[in-house]
Amino acid sequence: MRGRFITFEGGEGCGKSTQVKLLAAYLKEKGIEPLLTKEPGSTPEGQVLRQLLVTGDKDKFDAISECLLYYADRRCNLTKVVWPALEQGKWVISDRYADSTEAYQYYGYDKRVSHDILSGLYRIVAGDFKPDLTIILDIEPEVGMRRSFAKAETMAVKELRFESRQLEFHHNLRRGFLEIAAREPERCAVVNADADIETVHHKIVEIVQQRLEI
Amino acid sequence: MRGRFITFEGGEGCGKSTQVKLLAAYLKEKGIEPLLTKEPGSTPEGQVLRQLLVTGDKDKFDAISECLLYYADRRCNLTKVVWPALEQGKWVISDRYADSTEAYQYYGYDKRVSHDILSGLYRIVAGDFKPDLTIILDIEPEVGMRRSFAKAETMAVKELRFESRQLEFHHNLRRGFLEIAAREPERCAVVNADADIETVHHKIVEIVQQRLEI
Repeated sequence: MRGRFITFEGGEGCGKSTQVKLLAAYLKEKGIEPLLTKEPGSTPEGQVLRQLLVTGDKDKFDAISECLLYYADRRCNLTKVVWPALEQGKWVISDRYADSTEAYQYYGYDKRVSHDILSGLYRIVAGDFKPDLTIILDIEPEVGMRRSFAKAETMAVKELRFESRQLEFHHNLRRGFLEIAAREPERCAVVNADADIETVHHKIVEIVQQRLEI
Repeated sequence: MRGRFITFEGGEGCGKSTQVKLLAAYLKEKGIEPLLTKEPGSTPEGQVLRQLLVTGDKDKFDAISECLLYYADRRCNLTKVVWPALEQGKWVISDRYADSTEAYQYYGYDKRVSHDILSGLYRIVAGDFKPDLTIILDIEPEVGMRRSFAKAETMAVKELRFESRQLEFHHNLRRGFLEIAAREPERCAVVNADADIETVHHKIVEIVQQRLEI
């Protein structure tokens, strides 16, 4: 039997990485060995692309080049990690997937890349393949960013990067994730991430039990 | 007035680079300052992509990832080199452009990437933009490869890479370029490259004069 593909999405400080690990531990307990992956950079080639994307001049790639590179990384993640594992019956959990590209490029950056282009790239790279379940961790940007601040307290300089334009960006991002969830309710589940770690984890387990029949 | 965009295409040993330089010199004589560019790798970012594409394990990228990277490089070439120059009224000559991707990925590698995907990527990256003229330098692969051999004689080891599978590949490539030319005769002109440099150059000048009204 083909495994299941679960993706986690959400803005800054929503607790994705923590919740991915907790769900993986839960699945392991139930006898399901999950494979964890992430975007960008799950493969050696993807790591090079990630470096290209996150270092150097902010404007070195225009929006469309950037999307092509994210999708090249996604193609590596799918062909080398996700699809082979699913074929072996494994469950795969990905920290970010295509919804992040849409949320950042279309909603966050105010439609700088059109839906037509994004969905065209998706089809080229993944065809009809979709996650079986997407958990969207939803949190007020102010709360999420306060969490990020607390985490980064020892590196106080970083706070200066979150000026007002960026706050608006994060609000757009959040709205994007919620609109994606509303558009595809069979695939997506929105979880309120403004709660303690255990509460969020239990809500996620409940959703996974209901939707993927463990 | 917007400048003109001329692309040169063709297989191994067809003499592209030589003819690009000769045409540039001719245009300069006529008072047209041409800008020369090439794919992949016309920009600093494109150079990084080029390195990614031409070094390391042959199978590190699957065909679709590879096309996405070529198109990311193409987008850099268009947005940073070709389009700004055309807007300033300059003429731009590119050593390889989109026909090479189609000839290699679809014809050379036996349809490993579909026409739908290739034309979808083209639209995403370039929209309706097309070269004003594409010169396809046509040569029998055996002749072209003999030329490459002669050029690379001091590096004799290289010859060993041209085994029979590769000869078939180069025949497919040639057929690809000719089919593209037949499909878009208004844009493309096929020039017999199995002649001396001056003869080929004069033929190219004739075509440029006729089609682009110098």
